[in-house]
Amino acid sequence: MKALTASVIVFSTICLTATHAQAEVRNEPIKVIEPYVSESPEKVELGKQLFFDPRLSMSGIISCNTCHNLSYSGTDNLKTSIGHKWQAGPVNSPTVFNSSLQIAQFWDGRALDLKEQAAGPIAANVEMAMPHTLAVDVIQSIPGYRSQVEAVYGTNQVTLDHITDAIAEFEKTLVTPNAPFDRWLQGDDNAITEQQLAGYQLFKQAGCVACHYGEALGGKSFMKMGLVQPYESDSPSQGRYDVTGKEIDRFMFKVPTLRNVAITYPYFHDGAANTLEEATQIMGQLQLGRNFTKDELANLVAFMESLTGERPKISLPLLPPSGENTPRPNPFQ
Amino acid sequence: MKALTASVIVFSTICLTATHAQAEVRNEPIKVIEPYVSESPEKVELGKQLFFDPRLSMSGIISCNTCHNLSYSGTDNLKTSIGHKWQAGPVNSPTVFNSSLQIAQFWDGRALDLKEQAAGPIAANVEMAMPHTLAVDVIQSIPGYRSQVEAVYGTNQVTLDHITDAIAEFEKTLVTPNAPFDRWLQGDDNAITEQQLAGYQLFKQAGCVACHYGEALGGKSFMKMGLVQPYESDSPSQGRYDVTGKEIDRFMFKVPTLRNVAITYPYFHDGAANTLEEATQIMGQLQLGRNFTKDELANLVAFMESLTGERPKISLPLLPPSGENTPRPNPFQ
Ligand code: HEC
Ligand code: HEC
Ligand code: HEC
Ligand code: HEC
Ligand SMILES: [Ca+2]
Ligand SMILES: [Ca+2]
Repeated sequence: MKALTASVIVFSTICLTATHAQAEVRNEPIKVIEPYVSESPEKVELGKQLFFDPRLSMSGIISCNTCHNLSYSGTDNLKTSIGHKWQAGPVNSPTVFNSSLQIAQFWDGRALDLKEQAAGPIAANVEMAMPHTLAVDVIQSIPGYRSQVEAVYGTNQVTLDHITDAIAEFEKTLVTPNAPFDRWLQGDDNAITEQQLAGYQLFKQAGCVACHYGEALGGKSFMKMGLVQPYESDSPSQGRYDVTGKEIDRFMFKVPTLRNVAITYPYFHDGAANTLEEATQIMGQLQLGRNFTKDELANLVAFMESLTGERPKISLPLLPPSGENTPRPNPFQ
Repeated sequence: MKALTASVIVFSTICLTATHAQAEVRNEPIKVIEPYVSESPEKVELGKQLFFDPRLSMSGIISCNTCHNLSYSGTDNLKTSIGHKWQAGPVNSPTVFNSSLQIAQFWDGRALDLKEQAAGPIAANVEMAMPHTLAVDVIQSIPGYRSQVEAVYGTNQVTLDHITDAIAEFEKTLVTPNAPFDRWLQGDDNAITEQQLAGYQLFKQAGCVACHYGEALGGKSFMKMGLVQPYESDSPSQGRYDVTGKEIDRFMFKVPTLRNVAITYPYFHDGAANTLEEATQIMGQLQLGRNFTKDELANLVAFMESLTGERPKISLPLLPPSGENTPRPNPFQ
């Protein structure tokens, strides 16, 4: 009996470590990222295939991964994205890494969650330019997708809802835990350098943390870009004003996550800042009315570099072959 | 001593099975594909990263994988490829699966091997549009590439030669063994259907095998497209004539591999045939002066469907972050 109890305890401890990262031992406004464990690995696999499938675009060559490159930063690292027919989009592509940790999606928050979000780019003319009915027809026509939808959703009549739900479930797995800063939060004093620690102290003391807090250091609120001093941009976006039409929302943007920010250049909704140093200087001036010294800037940047986490290890999906009646792409439409 | 010998024998047997597929037991003009085992896994890994890296393109969004999608067929499945600034290329993109099994690269054979080939698309204006010196500068500026080049080639001065050599080594791993037809060649009578077997017999008897033979069912010779009856195409390509300038080479194309041909639609150097049935009918008429019946066509297509092999299982590479001085992409240049 005693032996049995002991092994039950061991077993449940293992389960715990498998599903939860060690919590932070330091009490800070920034929290560690926990790995996400899906209850439906089949749904994740289906969503992964769809994320990588260029057949969801009119041209046949653009997938979600084109603009949110999971090999690198979860973005395309362009000022503004390039989509169907080489059209330049109006705003910078945010990373999909840790996007599930936000209260809303898009710079202006016009989608409530990842599922609602995923319908957008498929049909958007400057992105994948694929009418939703055609996207559904394509997936429905591919035997290997039909059978997966059947297994996950219990019907072989594919809907847009299945497509976006599966993609969203896959995206939830795209968290990047175990950044040096997370290990510091968990009690490892040597996980970050002295300079990074100094940067973090300034980050709190200067007030960056008022907007960039929580697991994602952002993603939890909308704030005005250009609080103290106005921001000048050549982008047409007016932030949340475009969604609500209320004057008070003009130039309110979702505070972006600073997770992996060292590799998600260029910065801001218009992609106008090329380096982290430049973005930080602008933040200081426009949001806090403060001019950082060269050393202060270097410390803040060093701190943000400690936020680069472990990118998910993903096996390249093998996409199910098209069926006889799968509509063919039309790159010049 | 006896035990030792026995285990040595067991060990070497395992090694053998690990590096060689079981040879065919049937004596046929088509041979099984053997898996490729590289002597330098580090070089393969470096080549894989480069294959997936869009920083090798002027726009920052096109990688080798854009036009040779390893998630699907090793091609882009377009009539002709779309490259930098949405330009349509002159010819159909061939699959990179099993391309190492060919005597030369490109439809007109203008590159002798994969290493020579890889330099082409990087600089080609309708593909990645990236001057070679800039491509080398980009790779040289990325610390994680510099260290890998150092480990593989013993110098941290990156050259174009390193880039193309590593990509070529990765491409050699992209073979697709174990197709149903390979298992039939290895003696498994049930690996293919009666219809597929009938199709194979017709494939030999009609004379397809005169051009489509060997491991890759093609890739071993240049043949005239339109041997019996001329082929009409809107493509500017004149085949090997474009390379040699000799009249005799006009419209001579490298016989393409039929491995995985069921998923490498559309067909021919100009991508003009949409289905395998259509391509087969044209081959019969133009190369052999023969009109296949509906049943004959169905059998030939069924046989070719038995040539879809196991696509390599690839883990998505995690690309090394850009350095401070890494040149940024210029999508509209
Ligand atoms: C042509 C480029 C392009 C393609 C293709 C594309 N996206 Fe995006 N994505 C963007 C841009 C640009 C934005 C920002 C738009 C905005 O905020 O108004 C964005 C925003 C997002 C967001 C919100 C992130 C955040 O923090 O607010 C998510 C999630 C996302 N995309 C996922 C996807 C998925 C899933 C697909 C495929 C179904 C996809 N994207 C296809 C460029 C693209
Ligand atoms: C009042 C709220 C607020 C404060 C304070 C603030 N930020 Fe921001 N931060 C934002 C918003 C909103 C954006 C997005 C602005 C845009 O894209 O137009 C942003 C963007 C950024 C970006 C660019 C991220 C990206 O991916 O594009 C960085 C880096 C950044 N902030 C760092 C800082 C630092 C460092 C501080 C302190 C010196 C700071 N922020 C203070 C709200 C704030
Ligand atoms: C914009 C599309 C595009 C890009 C990007 C591209 N290719 Fe290609 N590739 C093609 C086309 C089209 C051909 C056929 C050209 C010809 O035969 O004249 C081709 C031919 C090839 C071949 C010869 C295959 C055969 O059977 O003859 C190989 C190998 C290859 N590419 C590998 C690569 C590598 C490696 C890269 C990246 C360094 C790359 N390609 C980038 C479109 C592309
Ligand atoms: C005399 C040589 C020759 C014979 C005989 C021949 N082929 Fe071909 N085959 C070629 C060449 C050359 C091409 C490429 C033509 C082009 O792209 O313009 C080709 C292309 C093909 C393609 C398209 C492959 C692709 O990926 O685009 C298929 C399918 C095919 N052949 C099947 C057959 C079948 C089935 C037969 C017998 C009925 C046959 N071939 C007989 C030389 C031959
Ligand atoms: Ca960015
Ligand atoms: Ca083809």
